[in-house]
Amino acid sequence: MSAPTRQIHLNAFLRNVGQHEAAWRLPETDVKAVTDIEHYRNLARIAERGKLDAIFFADHPVLKDRSQDRPWDSLDPFTLIAALSGVTSRIGLVATASTTYNDPYGIARRFATLDHVSQGRAAWNVVTTANAEAAANFGFEHHPDPQERYARAAEFLDVTFGLWDSWDDDAIVGDKDGGTFVEPSAIHRLDHVGPHFRVAGPLEIPRSPQGRPVIFQAGSSEPGKDLAARYADAIFTAQPIIDDAQAFYADVKARARAFGRDPDTVLILPGLSFFIGGTEEEAFAQRETFENLTLPTYGLAQLKRITGIDFTGQDLDAPVTIPARSEIAGDQKSRHDLVHRLTSTETLTLRQLLRRLSAGRGHRIATGTPEQIAETIVEWFENGAADGFNLIPPALPTSLETFVEEVLPILRAKRLFREDYEGRTLREHLGLERPAARERAPFATAAE
Amino acid sequence: MSAPTRQIHLNAFLRNVGQHEAAWRLPETDVKAVTDIEHYRNLARIAERGKLDAIFFADHPVLKDRSQDRPWDSLDPFTLIAALSGVTSRIGLVATASTTYNDPYGIARRFATLDHVSQGRAAWNVVTTANAEAAANFGFEHHPDPQERYARAAEFLDVTFGLWDSWDDDAIVGDKDGGTFVEPSAIHRLDHVGPHFRVAGPLEIPRSPQGRPVIFQAGSSEPGKDLAARYADAIFTAQPIIDDAQAFYADVKARARAFGRDPDTVLILPGLSFFIGGTEEEAFAQRETFENLTLPTYGLAQLKRITGIDFTGQDLDAPVTIPARSEIAGDQKSRHDLVHRLTSTETLTLRQLLRRLSAGRGHRIATGTPEQIAETIVEWFENGAADGFNLIPPALPTSLETFVEEVLPILRAKRLFREDYEGRTLREHLGLERPAARERAPFATAAE
Repeated sequence: MSAPTRQIHLNAFLRNVGQHEAAWRLPETDVKAVTDIEHYRNLARIAERGKLDAIFFADHPVLKDRSQDRPWDSLDPFTLIAALSGVTSRIGLVATASTTYNDPYGIARRFATLDHVSQGRAAWNVVTTANAEAAANFGFEHHPDPQERYARAAEFLDVTFGLWDSWDDDAIVGDKDGGTFVEPSAIHRLDHVGPHFRVAGPLEIPRSPQGRPVIFQAGSSEPGKDLAARYADAIFTAQPIIDDAQAFYADVKARARAFGRDPDTVLILPGLSFFIGGTEEEAFAQRETFENLTLPTYGLAQLKRITGIDFTGQDLDAPVTIPARSEIAGDQKSRHDLVHRLTSTETLTLRQLLRRLSAGRGHRIATGTPEQIAETIVEWFENGAADGFNLIPPALPTSLETFVEEVLPILRAKRLFREDYEGRTLREHLGLERPAARERAPFATAAE
Repeated sequence: MSAPTRQIHLNAFLRNVGQHEAAWRLPETDVKAVTDIEHYRNLARIAERGKLDAIFFADHPVLKDRSQDRPWDSLDPFTLIAALSGVTSRIGLVATASTTYNDPYGIARRFATLDHVSQGRAAWNVVTTANAEAAANFGFEHHPDPQERYARAAEFLDVTFGLWDSWDDDAIVGDKDGGTFVEPSAIHRLDHVGPHFRVAGPLEIPRSPQGRPVIFQAGSSEPGKDLAARYADAIFTAQPIIDDAQAFYADVKARARAFGRDPDTVLILPGLSFFIGGTEEEAFAQRETFENLTLPTYGLAQLKRITGIDFTGQDLDAPVTIPARSEIAGDQKSRHDLVHRLTSTETLTLRQLLRRLSAGRGHRIATGTPEQIAETIVEWFENGAADGFNLIPPALPTSLETFVEEVLPILRAKRLFREDYEGRTLREHLGLERPAARERAPFATAAE
């Protein structure tokens, strides 16, 4: 807002005891932390001490296979972040939720309430759920295909935006003498009827501090980019290579412009995992420590999920090439393209590939000194590849603490990251305006 | 648990700025408190200072008509109570949620997570949603009839119980050297297939501190009593008259026994609203103050909702008789029976009836000195009418503060209410055992 120069935006993407599949096997890791609220409170406080824009939780409404091999995000992210709203006061709160396995009235209610109870810090990371196994937990015969999922997602967002806009900002008049609590004409019907949803509205909740919760979108497919360009305030994307990131950045900003939006209001935030050492050698040695603790059984299950190919039983020390994506591919198209490209441009054994995937599963990984980490962040930020990053600490809380204590001061010295919060809401942290309400019809029964 | 005598259980049922429809018009009421988290934090702290068993929030997934006439429960109760988990440490947290307008996997996930993040204080008040207008917010052609709603509710509870029992308590072994995070055989499939739901499971969440969140059931219809007797740990009921309350108490306990349960493990907690004064006259004067601020437009809308009859335009000062419930009745059968009985046993004008309904809408109302309020609580508790009460303060925070400061010391002096919390979890506060898991099949993919 009042910052003198364009500022880097940084969120902490917090996955149980860390993104790296082997983080739990480190001596310092508390394996019981996976369900311990004190662990998550500690992470939230570290991130808030670092004045990060937001903390961010993933959503996995299904128990994946190979669950014996590592912790996963076992708590419902929305409930967890609502609980953390009570022990933080400034940091943004991003919870992922699926448009495939929720209903829009319920989502609109919960996120509007989160925006109220957090006093303007709520964000919803919109996903369509890539994991086909989730369907069986929600009574679906089949997991819908991506085209169907994204069509539903777009209508879902139209409905939730409409519900969030049900109320004028000044609807509560509280005229005690006259006996009018709310001005009836300041509440509006929705009466949405579409191919996926019929929702009457209005929402029973006054408009929230941010007008609407901030919208993140995660997913880099073609329909994902369009969804983000139409509806999202920020996009979380896996971009390991700067050339690709620049192309993606330009593409999404152009799509936003095509939808009539100011491209500066759609922030591009690639994922960034990191291994930080006092020297470059120490950083690489630390990464090696993690990779030495990986379990091939788990890596093979992940590779099968990404590509649809089961490499179980193949020689781990023979070179491997992942074929290009075909019709019989796995769940994660963008990730498949990444591993195909990786094994086409480098000669990697299967074991090396699994180790390479162990830290970021397609996300960018920076390994080096705090100065080197800061440099690469600035390089991407200043060269049209990113407006900031979703930081993905490999181990928690340690990697997050190291980033906050060692990398942030360097970015602050360059005047590229805030010394303290300047605004109260997440929209203010992100430099985004509070949105105006869409056009709406009156709520007839209230106005009768 | 270790209490020397049977103890009274008391929850605070917290409705925006108070249950009484005119509470918002009192000079001391902050009308903006309806969506202000600081208001709810204050209420939670008062209740916890009073060592109450739990705070309790209602659910209204629709904006009712006559919304201009009074505040309503505009925040989503689950999100609100998750947020309050962060600013409390001992008090139980009860959120109402509908089995008609939710899916069981989502509910099981959210409440299991709430139980983890609150360290064993979560409870779900199961309702089927009486308000037919809610259907239009969830894409339903029609609001299902009570028989259909309760059949769905029973299956919904079977599914959520099954999901909560997915994990053995000691499933996380965390064997860092051996590379086994969780014991695969300690996770169990559900594979539920029924008329309303198909849910594979397992839940992705380790079993929660209370084994399962505490189950409340609200609603006093025949199918409601059966549902409570089969599944619930506690039942919230509207019982204004002690004779009826005793019959209800005996009926539900007998049903629990018929379902093979120990009747002492199903607590009966009627609602209790109250007006407290230094003298009986002061208490009645206080009640009069509230009633003088009621708006007939709102009362008529409520009466129409309960009975299906619109009295708009009728003489407010002429005697009124509410006919017995018929096939074309309103949403709330138990409430209809109450108003029918009220106008059959007393001669009331329409205005007097509306004023009578303004405080409790069918719930019991006690008016008197702190000693008199305590006496009537003890009378019901010791004479087979109640195991405790859901306290319904007419105005917030003031009425709750008065109850905590003036009535609780009297109950403590009689050794009928705790001096301090003795347990950590809500089940412990309520004197209920942690439930054992149901029989289950192994989770094949994890055990492969």
